Amino acid sequence: MAPGKKGILERLNAGEVVIGDGGFVFALEKRGYVKAGPWTPEATVTHPEAVRQLHREFLRAGANVMQTFTFYASDDKLENRGNKLSFTGAQINEAACNLAQEVASEGDALVAGGVCQTPSYLSCKSETEVKAIFKKQLDVFIKKNVDFLIAEYFEHVEEAVWAVEVLKETGKPVAACMCIGPEGDMHGVSPGDVAVRLVKAGAQIIGVNCHFDPMTCVKAVKMMKEGVEKAGLKAHYMVQPLAYHTPDCSCQGFIDLPEFPFGLEPRILSRWDMHQYAREAYNCGIHYIGGCCGFEPYHIRAVAEELAPERGYLPAASEKHGNWGAGLEMHTKPWVRARARRDYWENLKPASGRPLCPSMSSPDGWGVTKGHSELMQQKEATSQDQLKQLFDRSKSH
Amino acid sequence: MAPGKKGILERLNAGEVVIGDGGFVFALEKRGYVKAGPWTPEATVTHPEAVRQLHREFLRAGANVMQTFTFYASDDKLENRGNKLSFTGAQINEAACNLAQEVASEGDALVAGGVCQTPSYLSCKSETEVKAIFKKQLDVFIKKNVDFLIAEYFEHVEEAVWAVEVLKETGKPVAACMCIGPEGDMHGVSPGDVAVRLVKAGAQIIGVNCHFDPMTCVKAVKMMKEGVEKAGLKAHYMVQPLAYHTPDCSCQGFIDLPEFPFGLEPRILSRWDMHQYAREAYNCGIHYIGGCCGFEPYHIRAVAEELAPERGYLPAASEKHGNWGAGLEMHTKPWVRARARRDYWENLKPASGRPLCPSMSSPDGWGVTKGHSELMQQKEATSQDQLKQLFDRSKSH
Amino acid sequence: MAPGKKGILERLNAGEVVIGDGGFVFALEKRGYVKAGPWTPEATVTHPEAVRQLHREFLRAGANVMQTFTFYASDDKLENRGNKLSFTGAQINEAACNLAQEVASEGDALVAGGVCQTPSYLSCKSETEVKAIFKKQLDVFIKKNVDFLIAEYFEHVEEAVWAVEVLKETGKPVAACMCIGPEGDMHGVSPGDVAVRLVKAGAQIIGVNCHFDPMTCVKAVKMMKEGVEKAGLKAHYMVQPLAYHTPDCSCQGFIDLPEFPFGLEPRILSRWDMHQYAREAYNCGIHYIGGCCGFEPYHIRAVAEELAPERGYLPAASEKHGNWGAGLEMHTKPWVRARARRDYWENLKPASGRPLCPSMSSPDGWGVTKGHSELMQQKEATSQDQLKQLFDRSKSH
Amino acid sequence: MAPGKKGILERLNAGEVVIGDGGFVFALEKRGYVKAGPWTPEATVTHPEAVRQLHREFLRAGANVMQTFTFYASDDKLENRGNKLSFTGAQINEAACNLAQEVASEGDALVAGGVCQTPSYLSCKSETEVKAIFKKQLDVFIKKNVDFLIAEYFEHVEEAVWAVEVLKETGKPVAACMCIGPEGDMHGVSPGDVAVRLVKAGAQIIGVNCHFDPMTCVKAVKMMKEGVEKAGLKAHYMVQPLAYHTPDCSCQGFIDLPEFPFGLEPRILSRWDMHQYAREAYNCGIHYIGGCCGFEPYHIRAVAEELAPERGYLPAASEKHGNWGAGLEMHTKPWVRARARRDYWENLKPASGRPLCPSMSSPDGWGVTKGHSELMQQKEATSQDQLKQLFDRSKSH
Repeated sequence: MAPGKKGILERLNAGEVVIGDGGFVFALEKRGYVKAGPWTPEATVTHPEAVRQLHREFLRAGANVMQTFTFYASDDKLENRGNKLSFTGAQINEAACNLAQEVASEGDALVAGGVCQTPSYLSCKSETEVKAIFKKQLDVFIKKNVDFLIAEYFEHVEEAVWAVEVLKETGKPVAACMCIGPEGDMHGVSPGDVAVRLVKAGAQIIGVNCHFDPMTCVKAVKMMKEGVEKAGLKAHYMVQPLAYHTPDCSCQGFIDLPEFPFGLEPRILSRWDMHQYAREAYNCGIHYIGGCCGFEPYHIRAVAEELAPERGYLPAASEKHGNWGAGLEMHTKPWVRARARRDYWENLKPASGRPLCPSMSSPDGWGVTKGHSELMQQKEATSQDQLKQLFDRSKSH
Repeated sequence: MAPGKKGILERLNAGEVVIGDGGFVFALEKRGYVKAGPWTPEATVTHPEAVRQLHREFLRAGANVMQTFTFYASDDKLENRGNKLSFTGAQINEAACNLAQEVASEGDALVAGGVCQTPSYLSCKSETEVKAIFKKQLDVFIKKNVDFLIAEYFEHVEEAVWAVEVLKETGKPVAACMCIGPEGDMHGVSPGDVAVRLVKAGAQIIGVNCHFDPMTCVKAVKMMKEGVEKAGLKAHYMVQPLAYHTPDCSCQGFIDLPEFPFGLEPRILSRWDMHQYAREAYNCGIHYIGGCCGFEPYHIRAVAEELAPERGYLPAASEKHGNWGAGLEMHTKPWVRARARRDYWENLKPASGRPLCPSMSSPDGWGVTKGHSELMQQKEATSQDQLKQLFDRSKSH
Repeated sequence: MAPGKKGILERLNAGEVVIGDGGFVFALEKRGYVKAGPWTPEATVTHPEAVRQLHREFLRAGANVMQTFTFYASDDKLENRGNKLSFTGAQINEAACNLAQEVASEGDALVAGGVCQTPSYLSCKSETEVKAIFKKQLDVFIKKNVDFLIAEYFEHVEEAVWAVEVLKETGKPVAACMCIGPEGDMHGVSPGDVAVRLVKAGAQIIGVNCHFDPMTCVKAVKMMKEGVEKAGLKAHYMVQPLAYHTPDCSCQGFIDLPEFPFGLEPRILSRWDMHQYAREAYNCGIHYIGGCCGFEPYHIRAVAEELAPERGYLPAASEKHGNWGAGLEMHTKPWVRARARRDYWENLKPASGRPLCPSMSSPDGWGVTKGHSELMQQKEATSQDQLKQLFDRSKSH
Repeated sequence: MAPGKKGILERLNAGEVVIGDGGFVFALEKRGYVKAGPWTPEATVTHPEAVRQLHREFLRAGANVMQTFTFYASDDKLENRGNKLSFTGAQINEAACNLAQEVASEGDALVAGGVCQTPSYLSCKSETEVKAIFKKQLDVFIKKNVDFLIAEYFEHVEEAVWAVEVLKETGKPVAACMCIGPEGDMHGVSPGDVAVRLVKAGAQIIGVNCHFDPMTCVKAVKMMKEGVEKAGLKAHYMVQPLAYHTPDCSCQGFIDLPEFPFGLEPRILSRWDMHQYAREAYNCGIHYIGGCCGFEPYHIRAVAEELAPERGYLPAASEKHGNWGAGLEMHTKPWVRARARRDYWENLKPASGRPLCPSMSSPDGWGVTKGHSELMQQKEATSQDQLKQLFDRSKSH
């Protein structure tokens, strides 16, 4: 951490709002640097300029945290997902740290090293084996001396606790996020109980990320907070939701939606949705507020603009954005200038332009979770035979 | 043009598919570098790394043309829209040429210098005055020796013809795009008649860009082609539409939609919509196929993937994209792996996740166009009094 | 016609508004007396009380015309559609006349005898054969001395002209309605040309019924009127549309919609839609305004209420309906009382409560019409083999 | 009860399915005989033929119960709602009994005398006063010797219990229905607790009617059943829901929807929705299955057709309805004949034809209930001043 910068816990303890960044895998998939399916971050080595630019845009949008782009960068995942280039996990993780630190140093941002759920856990490997996976990524974060650590995107609290236990040994502040909604984890553990277990394992900041839309995630974190308080414990809270509307999701979130991952466009939140989200999260006592898949820099900027009164300043990127659409005062057409006002955008119910499409979907949800043979991970791409079986099965759902 | 590169007319004459890039103003607005309302491109000077990165992403996605980011970079527009930094139009245009040329040299792309409609025309300035505006931008393009010229985003054919006449004097190939749909220009001139006038003025490539969704734009270009052929003339055709569904637009296109410009998210096309578009455009005899507002690099990649059989190769960014979702064969969940097939994505009717929103909107459309006092442009931001009048008027619509 | 009642032409010549009734087949299908598929009117004989009651409700709602319930009551249709009870066409037609005349005598209504398109025409029978079919129904209407005649629900102008020629011989006023939209008849004859042929054949009142929603039907009749006026001819105009929204229909109308006939509920027009329709029709110079499939008595009442200023009185059923929802002033809940006003209902955009459903459908449309072997009619119900072929074919569409 | 007919409890005790009729107020409002707002049943006296015909249609559709059309026919309601004709409540109730008994005698149906919630209760009258209201209606039912009694459409369990206590004194079987959903009554009493109180008060059949769509009502009755079983009690269960989709309703049901009562058309259930409902209700152990507002005879027929295997016969009206659309085998067009099959209709997602409308609404819900001054009932129609206040208040919601 650069001298003079306050640490994550100092900030939260002081009651400051901390704004997170947005998700890298979806944003870089759209830009051409991440492959949907494997979702692995080799781009930190192969296309550092693209990763660096995205960091910069989030920083400019108001983010106080640069998360290392190390999602699914564990060796077991990289192997499982066809990382055919001869990069080691260590190389990818190290490059990610360099990029995050370079950009963080350009502004008031901290660097968080991140780990997430592993195929080893889904494949029923032992606690020792799974913890060793986390340890390998952690070694890089320690070597690069990141500011704090995030264990995120866990569907099972058991694995999240293992991750927290490993991260905890470093002495750095530890945040832990589940990718669950109000229904709880994949084994049915409620948000309140999940939260208690994470705090007891040593996480100082807890919350949820990914899988659900902002309002659903805030609701889940609220339930976590109630659980923690009821247990007489204390924690800070964070939330990093999707930028997709998901009112129709069941317990596994947007993965189950038929639109995942290549037809989610009509669900993308507007900047005005983000204002609502930021306010609601803040009002619930969540002070670390960021984003995950689907977030573009302008979404983070909207969070920062909504919370500008609390933070005391606008983000740099607001030089290119009028308050509540005020930039439209400069528009050529008078009827567009008439939209330069808050109540216009707050009340707009945007149309999809898709009259043949519904507004909600029936999620897939095969009801399988860790322990089920269909979730055992394999290194090989799905074979044609396996695909045929999957197609047939999906038809019967 | 780099030695060895074929020019734009050589390519089109040889029957090659030329893929354009996507629009910069909307993409960079989301990234935090362009202000909605003024929509001017000062970022070429202030944040060259952001502009360069977007060029690179479109190149990687398969674009054969790097358009200089000079939209609304005429001096009269820059003044009118509050360009308070002390950059001249010439500086902005020159920086734009440098960035486009730098990236074009990294691959098989040409550089096109672009001009577009002016506030001077809307404010009823004379032909001489309007042509002088175009001439100033053109001086930079000639000095920087761009490969060809595009006059685009014209609502009135009269102004477009003036632009073509100016560009034509340089001896460089000239393309001309109107931002009109099948209903024709703002003065009611039909696409067929518009086309004939552009060709007679000297444009070798004609078409439409912006304002309407891909299928609507293709339809309009088809009408232009029919007009040109009926008149016994010849031309090449291009199309650079929105990446937003606009079935509900009337003659002025998406400007009139209540969602413009800050609530368009639910209308964003998916990559699969782009496959359909690319095929339809190609089948209509349009060989220069690109995008405008709303296009992200993955949209251009989808165009390039659809036309890979015709072009003979996939774009670089396809290393991060399986054919028709094939990358999902590597997904963790079996029911997502079952989506790794063409018919799944072709038949998907994606939900909006917005059950309180309609699928179509009633466009605003005050029915005013060039010559109407409400369209006289002013340098000052709309005053509070003017805004109030606009609000009241918009309520009565 | 009862002494003292003005005839249909007297009324229209005097500039009076004539309100038609609604369609009987759909209304009685919902009540359990008509079978969807055959759509034949045996109920006039088997359940006269049900037919009589529906007549009464339309009369009470403001209708000035009681159409005999003789739709598809030609002998060739009755045979083709499995009329297994031993009723002759003559019996059914006669019973229909009795019921219509009984109720008409209870108020200010005329009785119209109706004929419609025949399976014989679709099966390519000769003009002589088809005309003989009409003649048989007509014999009953003459015997019962109905007030005027309507030839309605014709998809092909050729058959409609034949019908008019037959009806014309009686000396009674003749109205003729096609079931077409703005695209014209099944052989591509435009509404304007269709209209001219009907007027030349002797029809004094022309228009369209069924197949499309009110606004679309009004548009088609407007085109007919323009055709007639351009030809220097004269006629009265009528319209009897569906009570279903059909913005997504192609030339054959709602028959092609996937929802036809058992899933049309979400498309049913509200009474407020009917106000708009009645006003628009009247403004277009259409003075005989009624309804067809989907109309319930309250829909006709809404037409009568909208045109009460022109007619000078409210219908009897308005004793049970406050003006623009004024009855809600008596509602128990205050927030429902707040809805007792015109602008509330005029501006309401009613939700479907069906978030998994789209707002528009892709019509079926196999593109076959009279002369195509698939349209040759048969007396037998479709066999299992034929059904299987149809299913397979529909899948490939 | 006619000799030879089994009573309601005999039937339910024997495990028979009992099919109820549909709601009369909405059906007769559409036919022109009931006024929305007051919703009172003077038509039993003024237009007996219309009421009789509707009874007949439900009987023919399969109903085993003819409910007397005595909704809101208590003297306090009739006075409050502007019953200006000089009919006493006794006259209206007696006429209703005559009509129900006349039609019941034409088939295998019982007659149920019905009472419902009173304005006196909402206006905080005493238990004695409210019970006296019920007693007055009951006197007619006893005089006419109806087969059993139903206390239905209660928002507050307290008032429902009072009604049951009064009805119970007659010795006739007593059914009791609340108009609540899974959230419970207006004072927050859960469905389980409500149920226990009703059973303890003496109701032998309990359930819910009106206010919510079929699936929501079934869910609420299921919760009632669980409550009763948990308390070690026993009861029979009934359900008579709306024929409108109401996924967006909060605790007071469809009254709060902006579409109530004049814009509900897009929400009307199809017959296929009714099949699902009937099966689900039956599977939950609910054996008295009928309908309320929005039900037309064909909806009840669909319930009877779904449960034909259990009942052993089809209703009379099925002579006019092929199994799962089989009547379409006789349709003129081959592509409509291709729809003559179950899976077509089961999987259809019907479009609304309303692209400018959303699929869900935000309910009004002012959050007031019995005891709140705004719910004190008055005899006078709302004054203009009161209306203005209501409009202003509704705008601020």
